[in-house]
Amino acid sequence: MSFLSKKYSSMEAYTPGEQPRDKKYIKLNTNESPYPASPKALEAINANEVKDLRLYPDPTCSELRESIAKRYGVEKENVFVSNGSDDILNFFFLGFCDEEKTAVFPDITYGFYPVYCNLYGVKYREIPLRDDFSVGVEDYLDVKANVVIANPNAPTGKTISLDDIKRILESNRDYACLIDEAYVDFGTESATKLVGEYDNLLVVSTFSKSRSLAGGRLGFAIASREIIEGLEKIKYSTNPYSINRLTLLAGKAAIEDEEYFEECRQKIIETREYTTRELEKRGFKVIPSKANFVFAKLDSIDGGSLYLKLKEKGILVRHFKKERIKDYLRITIGKREEMEKLIETIDILAQEPMLLGEETI
Amino acid sequence: MSFLSKKYSSMEAYTPGEQPRDKKYIKLNTNESPYPASPKALEAINANEVKDLRLYPDPTCSELRESIAKRYGVEKENVFVSNGSDDILNFFFLGFCDEEKTAVFPDITYGFYPVYCNLYGVKYREIPLRDDFSVGVEDYLDVKANVVIANPNAPTGKTISLDDIKRILESNRDYACLIDEAYVDFGTESATKLVGEYDNLLVVSTFSKSRSLAGGRLGFAIASREIIEGLEKIKYSTNPYSINRLTLLAGKAAIEDEEYFEECRQKIIETREYTTRELEKRGFKVIPSKANFVFAKLDSIDGGSLYLKLKEKGILVRHFKKERIKDYLRITIGKREEMEKLIETIDILAQEPMLLGEETI
Repeated sequence: MSFLSKKYSSMEAYTPGEQPRDKKYIKLNTNESPYPASPKALEAINANEVKDLRLYPDPTCSELRESIAKRYGVEKENVFVSNGSDDILNFFFLGFCDEEKTAVFPDITYGFYPVYCNLYGVKYREIPLRDDFSVGVEDYLDVKANVVIANPNAPTGKTISLDDIKRILESNRDYACLIDEAYVDFGTESATKLVGEYDNLLVVSTFSKSRSLAGGRLGFAIASREIIEGLEKIKYSTNPYSINRLTLLAGKAAIEDEEYFEECRQKIIETREYTTRELEKRGFKVIPSKANFVFAKLDSIDGGSLYLKLKEKGILVRHFKKERIKDYLRITIGKREEMEKLIETIDILAQEPMLLGEETI
Repeated sequence: MSFLSKKYSSMEAYTPGEQPRDKKYIKLNTNESPYPASPKALEAINANEVKDLRLYPDPTCSELRESIAKRYGVEKENVFVSNGSDDILNFFFLGFCDEEKTAVFPDITYGFYPVYCNLYGVKYREIPLRDDFSVGVEDYLDVKANVVIANPNAPTGKTISLDDIKRILESNRDYACLIDEAYVDFGTESATKLVGEYDNLLVVSTFSKSRSLAGGRLGFAIASREIIEGLEKIKYSTNPYSINRLTLLAGKAAIEDEEYFEECRQKIIETREYTTRELEKRGFKVIPSKANFVFAKLDSIDGGSLYLKLKEKGILVRHFKKERIKDYLRITIGKREEMEKLIETIDILAQEPMLLGEETI
């Protein structure tokens, strides 16, 4: 007998990117940074601090929140931190959505949003992206529901402007609007600067991508004091000590090291532009990306087959089976040499009759 | 406007033990271990691993689960791990309790259980402990509800026997029974050995106390494959990468270092017996404890006043305002010298007219 509540018997959980251990891959499938975290973050995890793992972390995460607040020009009371941005998204759907406050988000976006809705019984409506995969701002005006938009969107890498976000915020003042900025640092303007103006705005972000701390588990949110208080209430009703002691230290050092951040960010942007150019030269359609990944397809082969061919050659990328995007691959931007290897591999595959490949996954 | 769902407007969150930073205290208030984690656990967090924080952790936590399984003589499929045992308790109330499966637990126990129930709208019944603070096993037979019992119980430190747990499991075969073993390693027989026999048993435990990793955030559960699958489903529907990479390594090393574990455990048990004797000599009533804390009171002063007097003298203990236990203090067992300091301080206070103190908190 399973003992799990019957209401979850047909629920589909989220499937994270695979982490195979059968061999060493060039790993371009989960949007991690190819660069380690700031040297200052790595130094912050020293032997004395490791010894102190016997002690609970500060549940208020006071010092880290102060540093984040300073970086974004807000007050500590406008900052919430937790165990990865997924944790914060989870709190949002649990705490801020209900019978009256349903949710809307694009049909093509982070696949976890509908999972949360199903878990908590939150009704949701998926709004189709336009044909060019952009978010149609008119579709989100006066929707009488909480709005969730990833900017840039995943897995497309496309952005919406702050002016469009403002229009959405204006027309839904009684509803919360969550902007998921996991990938914002690779070339999009952050909505955090609108927080003072809109009490219904919740910006969620992460240290997993541009701060190279995916393994540390650290996400943050910036919003009005009232929204932050709501998130705190949910955290203190589920798991108050949610962040590892060492991660609190590493996160603080990482957010304070603007120079290193800028350096990594620029390298990734440059490598993205290189990758886009090289893929296009080879006939790929590449959606213009502002993230640390590109979303690309080749007309001559379906996404599932190309994914398999690349995996066979030791390169892991991400493929989604959803109808509208099943021809595409999401390819994380790694180091320049990793992307060169990807392009080389594509050139090798092009010489085989494989690009008419029959396998699918 | 708060935007938090109206259903949470009167919800009371959990209050963790205070972590004041105004001065250096002897910290006997959150049941941390006074000893650092196993040297092998500390070594596991080396510079190379820290560099790899750029990568996500293994969401299946495969190697850690294997080590835990080996230690408890079960299969990996019987082991679940997550971000602290609070995280697992949270999953239990969210996933395994509902309209039909309500919950019962003692009136005096870990104060987080009713918080989870209120969060998820789970109906619960608090069953009064007997006058001597023991769990009356008859009260839990055939209750037609999920049963949650901490063994040893907190904050009393009292235990129930495996025979009693068996009776509860037998009489509630269609309901899950969660045994919270956060403090089991300080002298109680673990119910994990019953997992093969009872598919309705879920044992929850933690690395925060006997494994000295409170700051690492690591809890585990041992249960039937079906219950573990249910917990996995909830984890993959909320936050799949729930454990820090470094904690996965430290936890594995800690669970494999039986010798160091045994050494720390024995020291804490000895110090607990010392503390109990010394408190009793000074007129305290001390509940016989099998945990890494004692629950004690003095007739001449209320718990709140004594808590304040000790805090003034630099010693932090925990006081609960709940009616039945408001005269007691929960005192974590620290190092021998910390407990000697506690006793000394009590002797000093006894010379003041304070033990008739008027302050309350």
